[in-house]
Amino acid sequence: MVNNKARPYILVTNDDGISAPGIHALIMELKKVADIIVVAPSTEKSAVGHAITLSDPLRVDNFEKGDDWKGFSVSGTPADCVKIAVCSLLDKKPDLVLSGINLGANTGINVIYSGTVSAATEGAILGIPSIAVSLTTYINPIFEPAAKYAAKMALHLFETGLAEKTLLNINVPNITENEIKGVKVTKQGMARFAEKFEKRIDLKNRVYYWLGGSKADLDEPDDVDDKVVENNYISITPIQYDMTNYEVLEELKERIPDLDE
Amino acid sequence: MVNNKARPYILVTNDDGISAPGIHALIMELKKVADIIVVAPSTEKSAVGHAITLSDPLRVDNFEKGDDWKGFSVSGTPADCVKIAVCSLLDKKPDLVLSGINLGANTGINVIYSGTVSAATEGAILGIPSIAVSLTTYINPIFEPAAKYAAKMALHLFETGLAEKTLLNINVPNITENEIKGVKVTKQGMARFAEKFEKRIDLKNRVYYWLGGSKADLDEPDDVDDKVVENNYISITPIQYDMTNYEVLEELKERIPDLDE
Repeated sequence: MVNNKARPYILVTNDDGISAPGIHALIMELKKVADIIVVAPSTEKSAVGHAITLSDPLRVDNFEKGDDWKGFSVSGTPADCVKIAVCSLLDKKPDLVLSGINLGANTGINVIYSGTVSAATEGAILGIPSIAVSLTTYINPIFEPAAKYAAKMALHLFETGLAEKTLLNINVPNITENEIKGVKVTKQGMARFAEKFEKRIDLKNRVYYWLGGSKADLDEPDDVDDKVVENNYISITPIQYDMTNYEVLEELKERIPDLDE
Repeated sequence: MVNNKARPYILVTNDDGISAPGIHALIMELKKVADIIVVAPSTEKSAVGHAITLSDPLRVDNFEKGDDWKGFSVSGTPADCVKIAVCSLLDKKPDLVLSGINLGANTGINVIYSGTVSAATEGAILGIPSIAVSLTTYINPIFEPAAKYAAKMALHLFETGLAEKTLLNINVPNITENEIKGVKVTKQGMARFAEKFEKRIDLKNRVYYWLGGSKADLDEPDDVDDKVVENNYISITPIQYDMTNYEVLEELKERIPDLDE
């Protein structure tokens, strides 16, 4: 338990890039209650999953958002940002990692493609209570409720801590605070994009493909992330990164072939 | 249950790139027992995690490995390859997805950074029994036992199927078949690289960082992936992609703050 009269020291990152409006909205709210350090990708890194950069050098540059805040931009992924911040750039370990505010929900199967979530996962791997925050829109974002709730949850975790190897994945509907019905703890749904690749011809008459599609409407229970945000609640999913399927494990032992049988 | 006298139709991919020796070794073995289609990244994509390409067009080119096999190279990630193969390039859904043989173990925390595993995860998401195969070395690979066991496991899954939303993550020690002690079903360990960034100066006197470090030796039980391959067994971990932490879920419901409290 940390002395809750102290201000938490929070590492802020995202996957939309350090210049994105979502991280700015988050920082401006967090600044009121915490000491902030910003280390975020220099450019947009959407759908990078839990990627880390092994084969290229990472560049780190100073970044200033007018008089509002300063930070470091990194030529890597969100997970790179958290790793290099904690392992190299910062003098002391942050109390919390906050990643967001992402444009676009990170719910259902999207969770495993999400750079926003991967930054918080990296924080959890490094032993730091971590939160990913996403907004369910790409256009006309209403950041205030998400920023406000993220700051509130940050203070809450600073006081109470969070289970080991766990992070919180928060998704906020893009409506005003008055329209938000409340907060629900959810499980990750299995909704995924019904993938469609569009085949196109470029200016040199060469074929290329572009990934599109819309989210398949699954018949899922009411307590999954996608349903809860659809119903105008904030969704909080506790996420962990042990991917073992324990249910299948024992059954598999009985039947796997040996190498030389 | 599929008629096991038919040959399975297997989609083969990897994250070391379509020209890598590991995918060639895998294909040459699989060809003996299955019909193969190869769709793999045009270049190395290590540590890309479960990335998909949203903001760039994907290019698909024909690829020929001498007289041995033909396939398609894709300018994207391993997950892109599986997605575009199943959703666009192939006339019929493959019976299995095999991803590998990767150079370097995909055990412990590495599983969540792994492009090799992400390709198999994508297969599982698309409803196809899928296998990732990795070898515990970067140099002097002995591919034969891994290739042989992958082919054996492929035929086994073709006969028996695999639980929904589950894939198999196979890691093989880099020793000869005679030296391999057997096969064990394992859980994902929590061993991770003790991250260290080396700070260097480039030819223009600019600072850059390079990610390095060695795997921390955790005191883990004998039935985790890392320990099992260390002890000269083949490790098979059933992996799933629902990342919800169900243990924490109920406890969290009791204590999360509301938006307006």
